[in-house]
Amino acid sequence: MITLTSDFGSPYPAAMKGVIRRHTNAEMIDVAHDLPRGDPRAAAFWLRFVLPEFPPAVHCAVVDPGVGTDRDALVVRAGAHVLVAPDNGLAMPPARALAPDESDVEIWTIAVDEPASETFHGRDVFAPTAARVRAALDDDLAAPNGALDAEAVAETLAGMDDLAPASDPVDIRFPEPTVERDEGSAVEEEGDAGDEEGEVIAVDGEVLAIDRFGNVITNVPGELVRGRDWIRVDGDLTPVAETFGAVDPGERLVTVGSHGYVECDVNDGRGDGAFDLRPGDSVRFVPDSVSV
Amino acid sequence: MITLTSDFGSPYPAAMKGVIRRHTNAEMIDVAHDLPRGDPRAAAFWLRFVLPEFPPAVHCAVVDPGVGTDRDALVVRAGAHVLVAPDNGLAMPPARALAPDESDVEIWTIAVDEPASETFHGRDVFAPTAARVRAALDDDLAAPNGALDAEAVAETLAGMDDLAPASDPVDIRFPEPTVERDEGSAVEEEGDAGDEEGEVIAVDGEVLAIDRFGNVITNVPGELVRGRDWIRVDGDLTPVAETFGAVDPGERLVTVGSHGYVECDVNDGRGDGAFDLRPGDSVRFVPDSVSV
Amino acid sequence: MITLTSDFGSPYPAAMKGVIRRHTNAEMIDVAHDLPRGDPRAAAFWLRFVLPEFPPAVHCAVVDPGVGTDRDALVVRAGAHVLVAPDNGLAMPPARALAPDESDVEIWTIAVDEPASETFHGRDVFAPTAARVRAALDDDLAAPNGALDAEAVAETLAGMDDLAPASDPVDIRFPEPTVERDEGSAVEEEGDAGDEEGEVIAVDGEVLAIDRFGNVITNVPGELVRGRDWIRVDGDLTPVAETFGAVDPGERLVTVGSHGYVECDVNDGRGDGAFDLRPGDSVRFVPDSVSV
Repeated sequence: MITLTSDFGSPYPAAMKGVIRRHTNAEMIDVAHDLPRGDPRAAAFWLRFVLPEFPPAVHCAVVDPGVGTDRDALVVRAGAHVLVAPDNGLAMPPARALAPDESDVEIWTIAVDEPASETFHGRDVFAPTAARVRAALDDDLAAPNGALDAEAVAETLAGMDDLAPASDPVDIRFPEPTVERDEGSAVEEEGDAGDEEGEVIAVDGEVLAIDRFGNVITNVPGELVRGRDWIRVDGDLTPVAETFGAVDPGERLVTVGSHGYVECDVNDGRGDGAFDLRPGDSVRFVPDSVSV
Repeated sequence: MITLTSDFGSPYPAAMKGVIRRHTNAEMIDVAHDLPRGDPRAAAFWLRFVLPEFPPAVHCAVVDPGVGTDRDALVVRAGAHVLVAPDNGLAMPPARALAPDESDVEIWTIAVDEPASETFHGRDVFAPTAARVRAALDDDLAAPNGALDAEAVAETLAGMDDLAPASDPVDIRFPEPTVERDEGSAVEEEGDAGDEEGEVIAVDGEVLAIDRFGNVITNVPGELVRGRDWIRVDGDLTPVAETFGAVDPGERLVTVGSHGYVECDVNDGRGDGAFDLRPGDSVRFVPDSVSV
Repeated sequence: MITLTSDFGSPYPAAMKGVIRRHTNAEMIDVAHDLPRGDPRAAAFWLRFVLPEFPPAVHCAVVDPGVGTDRDALVVRAGAHVLVAPDNGLAMPPARALAPDESDVEIWTIAVDEPASETFHGRDVFAPTAARVRAALDDDLAAPNGALDAEAVAETLAGMDDLAPASDPVDIRFPEPTVERDEGSAVEEEGDAGDEEGEVIAVDGEVLAIDRFGNVITNVPGELVRGRDWIRVDGDLTPVAETFGAVDPGERLVTVGSHGYVECDVNDGRGDGAFDLRPGDSVRFVPDSVSV
């Protein structure tokens, strides 16, 4: 199986599929081709969310603002999964999700011939590399259980002549939010053992990704806002709602996405514009019950 | 074969496909993932249109505004087809289209473990259920003709421990339009036997679905408007056209969609806004030749 | 393998896939279903770009503004590839790209039963034809190398009773741009042998396609603008940029698309409106360094 992920829209991914079909009959499954343009961080966010649902496979992921520069092409083994991607960090968060044990992640650069185009390395570099890696793994799949296992994949990659250990691959790391608590309130409450922390006063988060609707996805777990009606976002009181329709068109809201994180959205509009937030920006949430 | 239908957009359906691939190698075919958000009626409309083109298969359809409530998950047998869907009625119109004989439709609830998420039952409930049903049917496919047949499917489902007959499943029924005719005109005309009905004075229809372009799809057969240049929609004279381009951008028109029903559209705009129509609303069409 | 291309959006292509699955288990790969509506020329442009990446296959391509008229349905052999498409010219540019030798292209009309619908020949004519052609080729695929070869495909098509040589199929031909050079400048320069042509004074191109974002794709090779900061488009000085973000939202720019041609675009807007250009229009590019 080869999964395909890009920001190419349509019909460019079909060219990648044609190229892959010249090398292998492996099944191809689209993850998405409408990811935010040129945003490896957003791609990393979504791949970290989606790829762990798959059984071991080759994942070809191309969101590549550096196309045409001399950035490397990577082959990353994460357990029995293999990611093929540009060296801009997008492969690292999903690799850590697929193989939480760091020793089970190996990163290689792959020697590529001069590609046919300056601008479409999805077709000219990453698709053929993914296809070649997948074809090389065919013998591993012929094993008794018919599934890729980490050891066999590692051996196969080690035997590929055009792979060399990557010396200093680019990484993307999603930060944890900073939670400020009222230590006094913890003492006053008579809670059970697991609930002895103080009331949340503020959470300083970061924007992980903007989706294609302009929704601002943060790194703040949804628990912060569940059960609340209002929350301050960078000082502005904002309704918390489970659905967009709970506020009028054009109005701002805070909700929890299917990925479990707090989002800053606008019903029938773009949250990134309304909240003036971009990937990597910091954002402060203050529960309305707290005096500020 | 498993078909997949949802209102999830991208990249969520890929997570469902990953889950399914952990259970079965059955082919997966997307019907659509851009159906109107949270509108089981629209999903029922489109599934009724599309699914009868398929050979017998498992159809996983998730448009589920009730996600996170205790609505049941259903497994519906319609002839040799099986639908897996939330209990909100969306499976019923396609089931009746797939198996017009009512006795050939069986409806089960399926016991589900506590799902991993409150909000993504597509991944946590419906995809694994569809995969398990499909895997259970593997032996039926091994039959001499290699195709699912209704009797074998019925037996297999009856043998699944976690299925229980559904007691009171939700249904969605699409109404027929009401046609008002001028009985006098029928008498005056010297038509052949099959054409003795009177001239149509008015048709009272209902909005079945709004598509993602805002086009208002009614339950009125296209024959009403074919060959006409104008028709009154709720009193307003509106041009009838075969293509959007026949009217200026921003202008209203009435056309016939590929499903054969009358649509109320706006060229380069949204018909639902311009005509102020929503799913379930009634709408009255009066031919322009009729004095009102 | 059957590739599928259309301007049908969603969920109509799923109906075509259901029909195909009733005839054959051949793999189906989507090229695109969001091509510009009713624009066979744009479809021809994109198919010429994408299909040559595929190994020999059956390609079902339906952009068909003439649906419901008596235009023919064509089966076109281009080497070992087969295109199934309406007779409006869209198959010809990709056929020439797939089989540059003219003698390796054969064009047939296919006899079709009265289709079930007037408006959805994708489902009622082209999908079943593609499936039947693909099923007829099954024996060719059973050959030792397991791949379609041109001779076997030609023989199989010649043996299909319902194919007749097409007498006068519609063609679409993309023109070459006209380049005007300053012959004097060539004499003045002391270039190497391969660079003895004069400086480009003007290029008269043509609009080949408008993509779904409104970007205007011309037939002018990207080399004209690479390395320049400005160029005149029909007289108006326009910035040349590698990315949309290089200009403010709503501003015009000229860029080079992944297909290698010059595009006239608007950041976060529609180039076709801003430049007032439509498919088939002529457009004149004059380098800013040239006095006009």
